[in-house]
Amino acid sequence: MIVQKYKDMLQGKSVIRQLSEFATQRGKEIGYENVFDYSLGNPSVPVPQAFTDTMIRMLQEKNPMELHGYSQSLGIPSVREKVAASLNERFGMHYTGNHIFMTTGAAGAIAHAVRCVAEPGDEVLTFAPYFPEYAPYINLTGAVLKVVPADTESFQINFEAFEQMLTDKVAAVLINTPNNPSGMVYSTQTIQEMARIMREKEEQYGHDIFLISDEPYREIVFAGVDAPYPSRFYDNTLSCYSFSKSLSLPGERIGYVAVNPACTDADIISVMCSQISRGTGHNCPPSIIQLAVSEVLDLTADLSVYETNMNILYKELMNLGFECVKPGGTFYIFPRALEEDAVAFSEKAKKYDLILVPSDSFGVKGYFRLAYCIDTEKVERSLEAFRKFVKAEY
Amino acid sequence: MIVQKYKDMLQGKSVIRQLSEFATQRGKEIGYENVFDYSLGNPSVPVPQAFTDTMIRMLQEKNPMELHGYSQSLGIPSVREKVAASLNERFGMHYTGNHIFMTTGAAGAIAHAVRCVAEPGDEVLTFAPYFPEYAPYINLTGAVLKVVPADTESFQINFEAFEQMLTDKVAAVLINTPNNPSGMVYSTQTIQEMARIMREKEEQYGHDIFLISDEPYREIVFAGVDAPYPSRFYDNTLSCYSFSKSLSLPGERIGYVAVNPACTDADIISVMCSQISRGTGHNCPPSIIQLAVSEVLDLTADLSVYETNMNILYKELMNLGFECVKPGGTFYIFPRALEEDAVAFSEKAKKYDLILVPSDSFGVKGYFRLAYCIDTEKVERSLEAFRKFVKAEY
Repeated sequence: MIVQKYKDMLQGKSVIRQLSEFATQRGKEIGYENVFDYSLGNPSVPVPQAFTDTMIRMLQEKNPMELHGYSQSLGIPSVREKVAASLNERFGMHYTGNHIFMTTGAAGAIAHAVRCVAEPGDEVLTFAPYFPEYAPYINLTGAVLKVVPADTESFQINFEAFEQMLTDKVAAVLINTPNNPSGMVYSTQTIQEMARIMREKEEQYGHDIFLISDEPYREIVFAGVDAPYPSRFYDNTLSCYSFSKSLSLPGERIGYVAVNPACTDADIISVMCSQISRGTGHNCPPSIIQLAVSEVLDLTADLSVYETNMNILYKELMNLGFECVKPGGTFYIFPRALEEDAVAFSEKAKKYDLILVPSDSFGVKGYFRLAYCIDTEKVERSLEAFRKFVKAEY
Repeated sequence: MIVQKYKDMLQGKSVIRQLSEFATQRGKEIGYENVFDYSLGNPSVPVPQAFTDTMIRMLQEKNPMELHGYSQSLGIPSVREKVAASLNERFGMHYTGNHIFMTTGAAGAIAHAVRCVAEPGDEVLTFAPYFPEYAPYINLTGAVLKVVPADTESFQINFEAFEQMLTDKVAAVLINTPNNPSGMVYSTQTIQEMARIMREKEEQYGHDIFLISDEPYREIVFAGVDAPYPSRFYDNTLSCYSFSKSLSLPGERIGYVAVNPACTDADIISVMCSQISRGTGHNCPPSIIQLAVSEVLDLTADLSVYETNMNILYKELMNLGFECVKPGGTFYIFPRALEEDAVAFSEKAKKYDLILVPSDSFGVKGYFRLAYCIDTEKVERSLEAFRKFVKAEY
């Protein structure tokens, strides 16, 4: 019999996808260049040429049997070692290759990390505003996602609510910094306070509480922003990474889990992940992509466009009277809507060909998200649309 | 807390992996060319040059934003359509792109197919001898794998045992033809009889019983062998494919689920798979590999070496007095051991640098598997070792 649970999920329509489809449709009418499509978080700058060159060189020169051969399910050992070395160099960690489990992007990393530390029925806490896919990602493992209400002053952490919700049932806390959708980066002070509370609760309950740190935007941090590496502040941390954004490779599905060497059972967690893989059907990320990425670990696509776009938008939104916490990274900004109902606000914006995502699906009401991973020229052209929109409607 | 279930799995050591490690170790002593390593099912012929050329051309010519962009989680639409067209042409099916769900190899395909049709606690039947990874693949979805005892006469299906075990609890039947480890291909008669029984039981129980057909060896079939496409004989079939063996791309993790257009809910199963993906962290196989494979769908690596090797081995094993059903495909052969205890037999063979996998982990006792995906020259050199082994020990 067809399993009803998944059948039921077909009813839910993603707001972001619907807006993106609207933008595509509208583009057919007036030209897509005239639709200010801020709906999707797709990188807008190409992968570094060094990645492409490495791929071509391997295809031309390497023995295809080796190049396309089975990788160990944990990842290719040399790749895992290079990832560890790069993280150690950049963040002062002490990973070895054994602490790295290669995955098909951050989604794969989270799927394995959660199954490692949360039994079915256990709770996983995350903080609003949050990436809406966390709900199916976590709930389909059998664990239960609970959302700590937002601190809408700063989009850091609402510690009072966090302490209340961090009960004995919580197996893990899932953070995303730099954050989708707010664009905020958790400060050192935020991470330290969060870690202090988690350690206190671990002691009180007599069991581990893991930090699962989802970091696909780690490399997109703006000038002067304090962007600590969370694992440095809390031993029981599993860092989940994706190269999708830093290298503009979202379709190639490559990332990893990095297990803090000081965490509980640190030496076996990556091997446990490779057991979990047998059930998820994951097995390993593609060999050739693992090898190519391992040659460009310290490169990124030219991410500077995102900061340029943010500054242009932030300035204009301020001029227009929006309330907005200035993003510290990512390619998102998350201003307050000009009316309580963000869905109605976003609907009105469509009339001006502004495609804005209302905040409801991110777990907070009354805001909207702009994904400004688009050409700067288009961001500039969109300002006039914002001015018209605000003048006419509010 | 670290989840005990996966921790416990770390105790189990794969016999195949242990033998493979022994072979590598022994190779360091006497040269790997002198170890007759029949342990691992790794393709021994290179990917077609057209695949490599396509990859290089795409990397050189395509816009990297498009090439490496997000694929839909069901797979790239043009790729899904090409896969459907190729299957229709070859097997007289009527798939559309909507019936194809692209996966990270057959493991990914099975992980999604099983979750579509089996609730936790439901039974999935498979037939001995079987690929040992089926146990974790199925059991970690929450379903329960049950193994129908082998028909050791022909290594087709033991129908009497099958009918008894096909109770109301069974949600799906998992077959693997051509078969690892026996090398046997289910005949049209076998598939028809299996389908007849399944339809009868569907009617009796008033619910669907799905056929999950795992077909990574589909393209490796020897001269004159009847190799039916199972889905043609049973509507409720989900075919799981991998390009690992046919294109010698095991590390690149690319395959698909093909949903029979006449099965229950045929039009939504692939979309259900993309919901399941959110929990498995699968999302989609790498874009560039999807695109490259779609250009070489009707090619294979030069698979003829496997038939050559099979014939050499089969002849010599017959000469030496082994009982053995002649393989119809794959790169495996599965003779009866010369003593009851196949583990002891395999242990003795090591003295002659013959690395043979005892059958116990395949769900049948007293046989052994040779994976003859190695150079023909090495197969020929191994014959003398077989002669010495048999003469000295039996």
